[in-house]
Amino acid sequence: MTAEFVTPAASDLPGRPVPYVLAAGDGERAHLFDQLFTVLLSADETQGQFGVFTMEAPRGQAVPVHSHPDVHEIFYVLDGRVRVVVEDGEGEKIDRVLTTGDFGYVPAGHRHSFRVESHRARTLGVNTGGFERFFAAAGEPTSSRMPPATPVVPSPEQLGDAARRFRNDFDFGARFIE
Amino acid sequence: MTAEFVTPAASDLPGRPVPYVLAAGDGERAHLFDQLFTVLLSADETQGQFGVFTMEAPRGQAVPVHSHPDVHEIFYVLDGRVRVVVEDGEGEKIDRVLTTGDFGYVPAGHRHSFRVESHRARTLGVNTGGFERFFAAAGEPTSSRMPPATPVVPSPEQLGDAARRFRNDFDFGARFIE
Repeated sequence: MTAEFVTPAASDLPGRPVPYVLAAGDGERAHLFDQLFTVLLSADETQGQFGVFTMEAPRGQAVPVHSHPDVHEIFYVLDGRVRVVVEDGEGEKIDRVLTTGDFGYVPAGHRHSFRVESHRARTLGVNTGGFERFFAAAGEPTSSRMPPATPVVPSPEQLGDAARRFRNDFDFGARFIE
Repeated sequence: MTAEFVTPAASDLPGRPVPYVLAAGDGERAHLFDQLFTVLLSADETQGQFGVFTMEAPRGQAVPVHSHPDVHEIFYVLDGRVRVVVEDGEGEKIDRVLTTGDFGYVPAGHRHSFRVESHRARTLGVNTGGFERFFAAAGEPTSSRMPPATPVVPSPEQLGDAARRFRNDFDFGARFIE
């Protein structure tokens, strides 16, 4: 990994509730595993209400099963195909391949996983305010505008610290997508 | 306007915080002026935190200048070009044509307007929970999957009632986009 990919991006976000615009791709960018996350709006601009981010990744492995007890989250597919598996209240799984324009909702506390099933995919996410900065905490801030050429795999310590700080519970023993 | 266009669409939303998915175009649809609004997620599913909707409209007139004192709102352009004008805290205007992938933020209380500048445009909106149902209240629920063939213009009474109920303050004397 070359130096320019680990330079933290200067935040384009104002940090308080003022009007602003961002050109496509601008925002707080971070690499985590094979994904590029770009935060467009954070709890700081919404008085803690919600955050907004985009995710771009190539076809790859499933994200480890996880849940966040305080955080509601949506997936809106901007481009490509993403398989999303979410556990409902009875332990049954909703298992669906979402394509462009499709929408998925994961309420607080529901275990879920997803996997990109197309060459590349892009999604837009919205979450209960604050969680949007998990990705930079678990991975690496970046000035790159592409998903990482080599996966950014955090140490167990870094991933554990970020998971505790953002109350994101991983269940590494579970496998929702074979 | 023919009968099938005024049939209220059955809601595809569960009304409580459970996992669900929607295919592109599904959701609570409503016509207002020349716009098709589709609510994908409401305050009922997010414990009041946020709502998510899409908007599709052809090139047309500017939306009347308005502001909502309790509601933060984003514009994310899915397709096309949309001119957005938002007043900052000093009365200066941010005036920008947003295109696919661009993002705009309108915090609570800031007057704003927008106009579709391309043949058609689609945006995704996120708002403080509850506001997402303003569009159906001001316009008409619909089962149609297209913007209205003829603009749906509410009576001053209907628009006024919806505006009061959702605390959406129109400023018909102001013009941000000529």
